[in-house]
Amino acid sequence: MRISELGERSEVPVPTIKLYLREGLLFRGKRTARNQAEYSEEHVRRLHLIRALTEVGGLSLNAVRNVLGAIDDKRVPLIDMLGVAHFALGPTPDGSPPSVEQVKALTEVDGFLTGLKWMVDPDAPARKSLAQALVTLRRLGQDVDVQAFLPYAHVADQLARQEVSSIDPTKQRGQVVEDIVLGTIVFEAALVALRRLAEEHHAATRFERRGERSRKPASLNRTPR
Amino acid sequence: MRISELGERSEVPVPTIKLYLREGLLFRGKRTARNQAEYSEEHVRRLHLIRALTEVGGLSLNAVRNVLGAIDDKRVPLIDMLGVAHFALGPTPDGSPPSVEQVKALTEVDGFLTGLKWMVDPDAPARKSLAQALVTLRRLGQDVDVQAFLPYAHVADQLARQEVSSIDPTKQRGQVVEDIVLGTIVFEAALVALRRLAEEHHAATRFERRGERSRKPASLNRTPR
Repeated sequence: MRISELGERSEVPVPTIKLYLREGLLFRGKRTARNQAEYSEEHVRRLHLIRALTEVGGLSLNAVRNVLGAIDDKRVPLIDMLGVAHFALGPTPDGSPPSVEQVKALTEVDGFLTGLKWMVDPDAPARKSLAQALVTLRRLGQDVDVQAFLPYAHVADQLARQEVSSIDPTKQRGQVVEDIVLGTIVFEAALVALRRLAEEHHAATRFERRGERSRKPASLNRTPR
Repeated sequence: MRISELGERSEVPVPTIKLYLREGLLFRGKRTARNQAEYSEEHVRRLHLIRALTEVGGLSLNAVRNVLGAIDDKRVPLIDMLGVAHFALGPTPDGSPPSVEQVKALTEVDGFLTGLKWMVDPDAPARKSLAQALVTLRRLGQDVDVQAFLPYAHVADQLARQEVSSIDPTKQRGQVVEDIVLGTIVFEAALVALRRLAEEHHAATRFERRGERSRKPASLNRTPR
């Protein structure tokens, strides 16, 4: 198919496709004429994957390049794909030295993970995210211990066990790594959305606005559905 | 305290504080001289709150303004604060009409939530996020039903029930709304971090890299801890 059809099929605007081609995120089509190339179903699929990474995962184009590079590099073992996705998701270290309270929180998080007997990369960015959550709560005067995260750790453990056991490593490598990367990013987005909806529901129940449609602040615009 | 001390105490750079003052996110200090103002502990606290919203929640300054406005507006009922935080967290509607597959996914999500008997705002942005997760998985060829989210809904329900019951509405209003907004944003970040760590652990266990430190792709730089 031509680039215009690729745009229609993938629902990605042609200028964006051209950007991805220039940035090397999308492999070039087969040249058929001086100024024309032929694209395939593989291109549609890759565009959907890029869109999942940027729109659902919120990845920058640089981070997308890292993830796609690892997906395409057959020397990267399957087991490392999760780590690649996690590093791409960030947070990116900003290079500044951690503060005293951040160091303290990191030590507590490390002890917490050891207590859970979880085997995780000592440099996993999620360790820092967890420590930062602790620091933020404390800065705002909440007297919170790292053990406050225990119920969250338990449900995370439960979900992850199920997810990892559903990976089928006998499928074609490209498909398996896509499953892993998508699983981590898309189901994360789903989990976050469901937690917000559940909070809304329980708040409505507790504060007895049963059946009444929750009022929304007029200052927040949104489009009608 | 002067602005320089406010910067040190809050760990927010003075130019950033000045930006927040100009943008109306931070209330002005008490003027003590022509070019000098006196700041209080309230300013330190507010700066920490802004930082939590931007750094942990990833909110834009406009979204922060909406959230702070609702926190400060005593007419906004407590129950609505969650909704305010959720609308600020997004996703922001982009105004484009939903595609056929998006409409289909939204209908499925609505049916799913009805089945769970959850009372949620018909316009809650998280509905769209959930539908988008479904669309993304399908575009990538995964034959997935909305019921695939059921285990996630169950843990979300479990966590939210606990969170909402821990809200103490007898505390001072300002403190309660901060607890609600922070709870949704900071514990969400913690949950996401823990899920990634749990995935890493279960992947390491399943793929038998027990005890071995996971290799990281050389292309991803990070600073030493």
